[in-house]
Amino acid sequence: MATSGTQRPGGRTERTRQAVLHATLDLLAERGFGDLTVDAVAERSGVHKTTVYRRWSSPDGLVAAALQMGAEDDWTAPDTGSLEDDLYEVAAEVVRYFTAPALKELPMASVAAAFQSSQAAEALHDFYADRHVRMAPITERAVARGEVPPGTDGDELVRAVCGPMFYRLLLSRESVTVADARVTARAVAAAAAAGSFVLKPHSED
Amino acid sequence: MATSGTQRPGGRTERTRQAVLHATLDLLAERGFGDLTVDAVAERSGVHKTTVYRRWSSPDGLVAAALQMGAEDDWTAPDTGSLEDDLYEVAAEVVRYFTAPALKELPMASVAAAFQSSQAAEALHDFYADRHVRMAPITERAVARGEVPPGTDGDELVRAVCGPMFYRLLLSRESVTVADARVTARAVAAAAAAGSFVLKPHSED
Repeated sequence: MATSGTQRPGGRTERTRQAVLHATLDLLAERGFGDLTVDAVAERSGVHKTTVYRRWSSPDGLVAAALQMGAEDDWTAPDTGSLEDDLYEVAAEVVRYFTAPALKELPMASVAAAFQSSQAAEALHDFYADRHVRMAPITERAVARGEVPPGTDGDELVRAVCGPMFYRLLLSRESVTVADARVTARAVAAAAAAGSFVLKPHSED
Repeated sequence: MATSGTQRPGGRTERTRQAVLHATLDLLAERGFGDLTVDAVAERSGVHKTTVYRRWSSPDGLVAAALQMGAEDDWTAPDTGSLEDDLYEVAAEVVRYFTAPALKELPMASVAAAFQSSQAAEALHDFYADRHVRMAPITERAVARGEVPPGTDGDELVRAVCGPMFYRLLLSRESVTVADARVTARAVAAAAAAGSFVLKPHSED
């Protein structure tokens, strides 16, 4: 019974992958990376552990693959018509996703896993790199509307608006609300309008 | 022999505390919170494990106390004479401390421990709260010099300049250098000069 998912013809490989990686995400959110085992993932997914070991080999491999799966969604950047509001939506999504009681366990555990596993860290890097690509239109549209000067660095805008949210969440461990996202979005949009994110070569050490 | 440190008269309690908490920080940096045990701390410190258990009771208690000890230093905020340069020094210190090969293990492990232990998270919060108090003069002096308007929120300036450094270090897991600290310090100082960090009541959701 445990292996039936792998023996069905047609799409069984993909179904197995989905079952295993969703079980990985569930267990990551419940237990954290430190207590995640291949055996527990096999049991939770109903896929035979030989199959799980052969394909993913370790908790590191499972978590990395599961985080990669997280980027396989149809997320698109907000398009509100103003840079400040687009940046607000991005920052507010971080706040909601990392603070909502039913949601926060998985993103928090994903960030934590990156401290313990270089494969998880690489997968987290890839996830954010992909998100940055999807957010590039925010800055491109702001340039087209004349809100910010050409050459404004979209990656820096994302870091500037999300960074203070994560600082509160992960470093200073303070409360954070969407009102904080508004303050930060307003400041970053103002700095961008003033040309602060048009990057120039640096001579400073 | 293992208990000699606790049996010496005069200052022995403080010496024991220092030995135990420094051993805790060493092991935290070497192994991470997940593999930190009271027994290992006792062995490393040369303090009898009964003493360690009685006073700190658990890895959580040890790490929290060790992080609290981290705030018992004489760190003062930079005072360069300009807001941008003060903010740059703060952000550049984050970059150096979290990337230098011989230094980064402990701060990284401290941040990681906060995911696994609410006592560690609280200690991390207290550490940053204390650092924010010490950095308040940066903004007070900038107001006095007329660089930024009165009412500028110093805590927000710290979050705005440090946040993007931590975003690269812990989320997007990108390279980060002091040149990035310069870009961010310049942008935050410009936004502050424009009044972006004079906080007003919010009506947004």
